[in-house]
Amino acid sequence: MGSLNSDNVTSHTSSSNISPLDPEEFRRQGHMIIDFLADYYRDVEKYPVLSQVEPGYLQKRLPKSTPHNPEPIETILQDVQEHIVPGLTHWQSPNFFAYFQCTSSIAGFLGEMLSTGFNVVGFSWIASPAATELETIVVDWLGEMLELPKSFLFSGNGGGVLQGTTCEAVLCTIVAARDQMLSQIGRENLIKFVVYASDQTHSAIQKAAQIAGIHPMNFRAIKTSKSTSYALSPDSLRSQVCKDVEAGLVPLFLCATVGTTSTAAIDPLESLCAVAKDYGMWVHVDAAYAGSACICPEFRHFIDGVEGANSFSLNAHKWFLTSLDCCCLWVKDPSALIKSLSTNPEYLRNKASDSKQVVDYKDWQITLSRRFRSLKLWILPSALSETVYKNGKLDMVSEELANEANRKLLESINMSGCVFMTHAVVEGVYVIRFAVGATLVEERHVITAWKVVQEHANVILST
Amino acid sequence: MGSLNSDNVTSHTSSSNISPLDPEEFRRQGHMIIDFLADYYRDVEKYPVLSQVEPGYLQKRLPKSTPHNPEPIETILQDVQEHIVPGLTHWQSPNFFAYFQCTSSIAGFLGEMLSTGFNVVGFSWIASPAATELETIVVDWLGEMLELPKSFLFSGNGGGVLQGTTCEAVLCTIVAARDQMLSQIGRENLIKFVVYASDQTHSAIQKAAQIAGIHPMNFRAIKTSKSTSYALSPDSLRSQVCKDVEAGLVPLFLCATVGTTSTAAIDPLESLCAVAKDYGMWVHVDAAYAGSACICPEFRHFIDGVEGANSFSLNAHKWFLTSLDCCCLWVKDPSALIKSLSTNPEYLRNKASDSKQVVDYKDWQITLSRRFRSLKLWILPSALSETVYKNGKLDMVSEELANEANRKLLESINMSGCVFMTHAVVEGVYVIRFAVGATLVEERHVITAWKVVQEHANVILST
Repeated sequence: MGSLNSDNVTSHTSSSNISPLDPEEFRRQGHMIIDFLADYYRDVEKYPVLSQVEPGYLQKRLPKSTPHNPEPIETILQDVQEHIVPGLTHWQSPNFFAYFQCTSSIAGFLGEMLSTGFNVVGFSWIASPAATELETIVVDWLGEMLELPKSFLFSGNGGGVLQGTTCEAVLCTIVAARDQMLSQIGRENLIKFVVYASDQTHSAIQKAAQIAGIHPMNFRAIKTSKSTSYALSPDSLRSQVCKDVEAGLVPLFLCATVGTTSTAAIDPLESLCAVAKDYGMWVHVDAAYAGSACICPEFRHFIDGVEGANSFSLNAHKWFLTSLDCCCLWVKDPSALIKSLSTNPEYLRNKASDSKQVVDYKDWQITLSRRFRSLKLWILPSALSETVYKNGKLDMVSEELANEANRKLLESINMSGCVFMTHAVVEGVYVIRFAVGATLVEERHVITAWKVVQEHANVILST
Repeated sequence: MGSLNSDNVTSHTSSSNISPLDPEEFRRQGHMIIDFLADYYRDVEKYPVLSQVEPGYLQKRLPKSTPHNPEPIETILQDVQEHIVPGLTHWQSPNFFAYFQCTSSIAGFLGEMLSTGFNVVGFSWIASPAATELETIVVDWLGEMLELPKSFLFSGNGGGVLQGTTCEAVLCTIVAARDQMLSQIGRENLIKFVVYASDQTHSAIQKAAQIAGIHPMNFRAIKTSKSTSYALSPDSLRSQVCKDVEAGLVPLFLCATVGTTSTAAIDPLESLCAVAKDYGMWVHVDAAYAGSACICPEFRHFIDGVEGANSFSLNAHKWFLTSLDCCCLWVKDPSALIKSLSTNPEYLRNKASDSKQVVDYKDWQITLSRRFRSLKLWILPSALSETVYKNGKLDMVSEELANEANRKLLESINMSGCVFMTHAVVEGVYVIRFAVGATLVEERHVITAWKVVQEHANVILST
């Protein structure tokens, strides 16, 4: 029995006699939250899409220390509405054109609720067989939809795994590549390892390399230009790798991107993989943003050449409606991951694992514990297939306005609360990014957004 | 507009005309899932707690490839009941005494639903100010409840962050410690860095060290014994560190544990920190399991001496009813984390970040994207305070049976489906771990479990 300092505890209420997981109370409160969220989606366009609060706003509204008197769910929801909602930037608003969208759907939400409700921890097969087996099945399904080479699928002795985000997926693959190379040429060479990407590659890659102990001076962000639509040129890669080899360094890892953050550039996989092969490098394809689109035959060519890569990942929470977080990673050689990431403490040993007939996903990722993410990926095609494929807004839209006033223009647009966009700088040009992809977005939102841009531009240009 | 291969697509149904996030359809389906889960909690004791399926069971029940015809929610829930539930090991069952529990509650579930529903990505303050601000507030609240030294709180220039699991928290701190030391003594010394823990320490620490590039030969699992109740002895630590220093190695990091996995041992923080200080090591306190209990004054002494540590973490999803995942990490020097983990690509720059007046949690963790986890931690004390504190089952219970028959006994017990326990090996003795802590557990479940143990023991002893 635990107790709190009695100074701080005041009167009892009825709720203290109810189990924290009482099924009937769960039912009552659960229904209330569903209604709350349904109303939120109905009304989401009424809120300023970019939150208008000032730093420190919430501290002024909440108690100074942990509340000691339980509050009814009604009061808590009122607090959420009054104090939390104004501090949200509304990622589900159809007027959100910033960053890359993080899409939701009813199906994804239901999967997440089941996952949270069961609350099983599927680190090894035995800890909840369904969690592991559903995941191996759906990653193969999705791999087939993408027409990934069979060597990336369980059915072809590769395999896929669901991670939280691309950051984790890339860290896992860099660590696997690193340890493979260290075992060949000796630990003392770690300081010489080089990781390659383009200057358009997401910062996650550089961060993962740094976490893995790669010398920060040995991350190469190879320059791209308008002439290749900001894709990484195989010639530039080869020339940089040659220089590094001459300097006594060891090429380790190349990250090629399908859909870069600033410009949605597509790196040419086939020719990049050919360069990497000449030097024994691991190639990872980061298709976080654009990968989901490649289930459509007319976009599949963007990942042509993936057969030369070692690993491939995409974020289902970007265009695949699963809600955060759900990154799908496929590797050709799961044993490379497992060699780096497995642990086998006695307290986790069991017959099924010892039999080697099951997948223990704990050895495919950074963390031990893991959520039952495959439920949402499974329910999604089951519930939504045609909606997603036929109505999915899979266009790549970008706007470039290339003068200095753009900075002011973007600030003015965003402060209006009508729409939210973000920016990038490409070859020194400040670019307003207009990313379309929110689940609730319709053509009219895009048209309205364009009107907002024009109105604010007119004001700025006329002053 | 994207399209799927038309070979695979058959007839339309009405669902394809509905937005994937239609508010009224969300309401209808959401209510159905709530009822499904409420029934699941009501009936959870009816299922065998350890799943009885054989490897490969699910492949036989699901289609060979992605379904292309949308199914109504009713059919999907029927599939979940028929095909997924039998493959679950029921972590929320009151008969689950295995590993460490991963606890749920209505409040934790509601928080998770709101987080999933809003689906905001709080990597930087501007991306959803409420997500960042609520987190800074609740980690300070929880830190105060634990009576952590002020130097760990935002109010004392330290600070806390919510991560997924302890694995991530430890990896972040090892990387911060590593980079701090590298900047002092040069990158070429990475190969000499040594990480210390006890032979009872969770395997997560060794894995994190390996990911961070620490030489696998330089992880020291210092032997403990019954004489110290399997706590790490400061003398053993000092003697090992001395040996390593004499051999030209560099002591980097000590992980002390409050509540080890096999034996719930408590490492003596104060004297261990004193040893670490003599050698300039970073000390992390892993209180994943037992940390939550320390909000009770009678258990607070288990973390006496934490003031000498650099960082401290606990898993709120273990004893604090938040459901997976929610690890709280506090550090005295956030700048050490930030130096190692920050990225500032142009496309994430914004005025609020540039002002340095806000916390950007992306720089406190491995990943960029992050879920709004603080909602559940906030709702929990708001909704449940007295229930948790007054009725919380915060006892540390462990069972030790020390003969060879235990292996058979445990297998026999678990296959019954009545209860689920796991094991450990301590100083060569096979121990059945009996971990009590599931949200739904009552005294009667513990009594019944003990009867099950006795019955199976009688059968095994009489054969």
